[in-house]
Amino acid sequence: MKKLILIIMLVVIGLGGFGCAQQEIQRYGMVLGLKEDKIPEYTKIHAAVWPGVLKMIEHCNIKNYSIYLHQLDDGKHYLFAYFEYTGDDFKADMEKMAADPTTQKWWDLCEPMQIPIKNRRQGQWWANMEEVFHTD
Amino acid sequence: MKKLILIIMLVVIGLGGFGCAQQEIQRYGMVLGLKEDKIPEYTKIHAAVWPGVLKMIEHCNIKNYSIYLHQLDDGKHYLFAYFEYTGDDFKADMEKMAADPTTQKWWDLCEPMQIPIKNRRQGQWWANMEEVFHTD
Repeated sequence: MKKLILIIMLVVIGLGGFGCAQQEIQRYGMVLGLKEDKIPEYTKIHAAVWPGVLKMIEHCNIKNYSIYLHQLDDGKHYLFAYFEYTGDDFKADMEKMAADPTTQKWWDLCEPMQIPIKNRRQGQWWANMEEVFHTD
Repeated sequence: MKKLILIIMLVVIGLGGFGCAQQEIQRYGMVLGLKEDKIPEYTKIHAAVWPGVLKMIEHCNIKNYSIYLHQLDDGKHYLFAYFEYTGDDFKADMEKMAADPTTQKWWDLCEPMQIPIKNRRQGQWWANMEEVFHTD
């Protein structure tokens, strides 16, 4: 019986370890301009993002999503975003997000406050940056 | 005996859950300029950061550390860093890192390639940005 208990414990520990093992993730770093006179409003709405928007982010396999703001030497204000994608079809998930009416309303609110930078690929709003370093 | 096995299983599952529970973390987003003519060298050395530097990063409780590069509308190139701090004394850990001879040599190599931005606090090299949004 002691053996049986030991085996059960080992199996459960093994399953527990599997359950919290880190998923394969793709990291994204992105940049976008923010109009100076819109900073208070942008900051305010981002302190309380609509639940439906957050739900869609989660539903589309985006995790650990942060946005930072800073004024650079050209006097302009920039937003830097970092998030982790844990799904297996980023394009499809982004299409799903773009088709969500709540997310569309949120973007309609945010986009007039933002200024996309010139150095971005066709179809991008936030410009994808190049990852030059990563350590876990 | 069945009860005993059930209790052991529940305890082990509980401990397993505790073991992989997310630690309390502080997130940092930082920005710094990079000289255009130094991009190839900076990118190259960051693709193979010295093991001693990586070890010190880990030793100082910094995790999930990424650096991104992008050219903005002023024609200048910027580095955006994101990392997570899991210790309980960031200042002390940063002092420990700054006192490490290998890290000092690494910084001596990197700093001449970088241009700190004007909008930073005294004593900063990388400028800390303001977090305006986060979702797990």
